[in-house]
Amino acid sequence: MSRRGRFITIEGGEGTGKSTLIAGLETHFLESGQPVTVTREPGGTPLAETLRGLVLSPPSDTRWSAMSEALLVYAARRDHLEKLIQPALAGGQNVICDRFADSTRVYQRLGGLAPAVIEMLDDLVVGELQPDLTLVLDGPVEELMARRKARGGSDVFEAMPLDFHKDVRQGFLDLAAAHPDRCKVIDATQPEAAVLSDALKAIEDAS
Amino acid sequence: MSRRGRFITIEGGEGTGKSTLIAGLETHFLESGQPVTVTREPGGTPLAETLRGLVLSPPSDTRWSAMSEALLVYAARRDHLEKLIQPALAGGQNVICDRFADSTRVYQRLGGLAPAVIEMLDDLVVGELQPDLTLVLDGPVEELMARRKARGGSDVFEAMPLDFHKDVRQGFLDLAAAHPDRCKVIDATQPEAAVLSDALKAIEDAS
Ligand SMILES: Nc1ncnc2c1ncn2[C@@H]1O[C@H](COP(=O)(O)OP(=O)(O)OP(=O)(O)O)[C@@H](O)[C@H]1O
Ligand SMILES: Nc1ncnc2c1ncn2[C@@H]1O[C@H](COP(=O)(O)OP(=O)(O)OP(=O)(O)O)[C@@H](O)[C@H]1O
Ligand SMILES: [Mg+2]
Ligand SMILES: [Mg+2]
Repeated sequence: MSRRGRFITIEGGEGTGKSTLIAGLETHFLESGQPVTVTREPGGTPLAETLRGLVLSPPSDTRWSAMSEALLVYAARRDHLEKLIQPALAGGQNVICDRFADSTRVYQRLGGLAPAVIEMLDDLVVGELQPDLTLVLDGPVEELMARRKARGGSDVFEAMPLDFHKDVRQGFLDLAAAHPDRCKVIDATQPEAAVLSDALKAIEDAS
Repeated sequence: MSRRGRFITIEGGEGTGKSTLIAGLETHFLESGQPVTVTREPGGTPLAETLRGLVLSPPSDTRWSAMSEALLVYAARRDHLEKLIQPALAGGQNVICDRFADSTRVYQRLGGLAPAVIEMLDDLVVGELQPDLTLVLDGPVEELMARRKARGGSDVFEAMPLDFHKDVRQGFLDLAAAHPDRCKVIDATQPEAAVLSDALKAIEDAS
């Protein structure tokens, strides 16, 4: 057994419950005495957070093309891997990351970027540092939206058309199907405790 | 004959006379009625200039690794190609660019990045939009430094050890030797008028 910690990424569309699950996982890890570092993408380090800002709000009246944006996201990812994720794993921490390369795959593809371009960048930048396990939170878009509304959540969902969210959902499901060793789909429509327990079971199975 | 303008890049170490030559070329093109757009890298568009700032002065106490920096430089280059260089060429402008991908090749290699990484990024980002002609300004480092000092120029040269400038010079010479169809080495120790006339001859020969 290596002392290397596990690298777990949490993926899924907006409002599928990623942050909620991560809070539950963090508590569980801490209470069971397993060191854990929680981080997010794009971001996670000062330089990567600066790039996140540039990606989410370009500094002038223009927009990034899908390829420029992918290059920026991977520049941020490289900094994050080198300065935070890799050292934490080497130090025995489990690392839980809120979104990672699968989100880039899904969203940049929808933005029109050829999958081969993303895979080239991923090989270059992530290489051997692939996540050990990726939990994909999944559920019918309408149902998750209704749940969120009932709880009085923000309207991120409504900023994009319903079809976009459906395409995002399908994108994650396709990725999970293409990488069954690494990805585990979790039913996000369950109560919080059931989502957490499915996630913990998947983590145990993967160990 | 296509209406596409020519894409000419000017390369060479610091203080080799790139800006001086470009001013001479711009005047010549304009006086002979040939449309010309002068630009520079990293930069050239608002988004790329923002990235130039991040590359030259990272926003926190940390530094970019050679790979993160290369990704940022190529993100900037993509924006520059898409929004300025490509449209200008398509509109029949000649484009003269102060530094381009060869500077990335030389400086990032000296920073420890594997040449294969840069070539992968270059294929992806620049692809078919390679420069038609690259003029490499070259001369003995000590001689160019003395000339600059005599003219009361700034001390950019002295910020780095002499050996670094010698490695940069050799890097450009190696690249020019590897790409003889595209690159033309010009003796930068000549008087300004002779440098300009060599450059114009190279442009004519390449047409
Ligand atoms: N299992 C659950 N059952 C019911 N409601 C939930 C569940 N998980 C999360 N929620 C609620 O759904 C909303 C979205 O959850 P959360 O913020 O965790 O999603 P997210 O995937 O992190 O969203 P974002 O993509 O915006 O970051 C919140 O109001 C949250 O309280
Ligand atoms: N052919 C020349 N003969 C003599 N002096 C020259 C010649 N060309 C340029 N210089 C002088 O050398 C100095 C550097 O020139 P210039 O700024 O054009 O170089 P550069 O390559 O653009 O430098 P940088 O890398 O700093 O942008 C200036 O003082 C300039 O006036
Ligand atoms: Mg969240
Ligand atoms: Mg200059």
